[in-house]
Amino acid sequence: MQIAMIQDQIVSLDKLEPVYLDRGVFFGDGVYEVLRSYNGKIFAFEEHLQRFANSLAGIRMTGVDIDQIRSRVLRAFDTAGIANAKIYFHITRGSGPRDHIGEAGLKPNFFLTVTDLPDDTQMKAKGIAVSTHPDWRWKRCDIKSLNLLANVLARRDAAQKGCDEAILVDEHGLITEGSSSTFFAILGQTLQTAPLTANILPSITRQFVIKAAENIELKVVEKSLTPQQASRADELFIAVTTKDIVPTVKFDGKSIGDGTPGKYTKSLIQEFRKFTV
Amino acid sequence: MQIAMIQDQIVSLDKLEPVYLDRGVFFGDGVYEVLRSYNGKIFAFEEHLQRFANSLAGIRMTGVDIDQIRSRVLRAFDTAGIANAKIYFHITRGSGPRDHIGEAGLKPNFFLTVTDLPDDTQMKAKGIAVSTHPDWRWKRCDIKSLNLLANVLARRDAAQKGCDEAILVDEHGLITEGSSSTFFAILGQTLQTAPLTANILPSITRQFVIKAAENIELKVVEKSLTPQQASRADELFIAVTTKDIVPTVKFDGKSIGDGTPGKYTKSLIQEFRKFTV
Repeated sequence: MQIAMIQDQIVSLDKLEPVYLDRGVFFGDGVYEVLRSYNGKIFAFEEHLQRFANSLAGIRMTGVDIDQIRSRVLRAFDTAGIANAKIYFHITRGSGPRDHIGEAGLKPNFFLTVTDLPDDTQMKAKGIAVSTHPDWRWKRCDIKSLNLLANVLARRDAAQKGCDEAILVDEHGLITEGSSSTFFAILGQTLQTAPLTANILPSITRQFVIKAAENIELKVVEKSLTPQQASRADELFIAVTTKDIVPTVKFDGKSIGDGTPGKYTKSLIQEFRKFTV
Repeated sequence: MQIAMIQDQIVSLDKLEPVYLDRGVFFGDGVYEVLRSYNGKIFAFEEHLQRFANSLAGIRMTGVDIDQIRSRVLRAFDTAGIANAKIYFHITRGSGPRDHIGEAGLKPNFFLTVTDLPDDTQMKAKGIAVSTHPDWRWKRCDIKSLNLLANVLARRDAAQKGCDEAILVDEHGLITEGSSSTFFAILGQTLQTAPLTANILPSITRQFVIKAAENIELKVVEKSLTPQQASRADELFIAVTTKDIVPTVKFDGKSIGDGTPGKYTKSLIQEFRKFTV
């Protein structure tokens, strides 16, 4: 008799709920998005849906209706009624016997949560500490996939060092991005961040940060930094959907500037706020 | 109200079954093993348990009792009563709100299946075709983790080309391994395969293949091959727990030798069989 075992409980394989045979858990065979709302309005919704469509194409998942995703997100957001919400959703290629290829005609699994977004005022005012970690991720980080173990391990390493984010450094000694954020440096009147390649997530927040930087007349340079260059920058910050811009005041134990959020970073936070009202 | 949505169904987040919040699906934050039995006896059980312990250590998962895993596997195998079985199991870091770090004290999720192993006689007699694909995997393939999307994409690409396995080629133009197998070439009286590095799974079957090769007085060289070298080899084969040795008779469309399983490969299959009785 073919069987499954969940913790210590044995069940017949044909009685098993499909969620246990999700390709999401067997292979990470799926893609996801994270959205946030400001005061009841979802920020950059269409941009995120477009990226989600790109991720689906990246893993050759066809037959997902983006209009259906949009209406599911809206219905869930309305039902939750949370003004400042975090919306997470993923789609996997479906449930079935564990096989790399997967049967034809699997039905994708959709999962979503709407949760309260923790207040980040203090984090923004004080700034955070970050530490570097080798970038162990796969070579298609332009796809927002469920393969995030390298990110988890880097972030857990940072937490052990008392840091709030891990900054990933590739085999050439260059910073790619944070474990779940884009990394930015300000040197003089220049904003610098890594260019978009197959190893960088095309962050939506990054687009808006660059727009904000242009609005305050910072020069924008898309060029990778070394950890040494980053640690000598005038200002550092990370950007992520759930918190937009977060000043970074310590890099691998070294204080940046005077150890408090820098003036351009604070201006960018103000500029960014204009996009969200 | 914090909510979740499964396909089109909305549920309150605090009513959600923990399986939907498994870090296995959110991040691939877990490790796995695949065992097989020959005529009612699990092959190389302790070796697989040792590798599982190494994988757990690799992702810094503590508190998993290997003795408990061993007895779960044995109990499930006994219950299933399948003489030639495939045993798959994984452990994830547990279920909880999606957060890279994860709460302290999460309870790991264990999942196992025992299934019939399809007969591979025809595959062994005829040999298989393989095609190359860029190795997009993460940089810690020595850990047998649930982050397998690169493997899935490579295998699906191979299937589209009518091939049974994808052979992964790294950024230096060297073959690492198959999407779920070790890759071997025979050149003259030498068996060649990639050395064990952070980017190669320390395959248990590989150990036994090397032992079998020594028994038939083949010289063993652990050195990476290029696709060009592989396509000109006298014989090729892959090795994987579920099928042990499978002759490879076509490489990126080019026939190997006379297009049938080679003499040393056939001898190795015979030698390997001696380990499994």
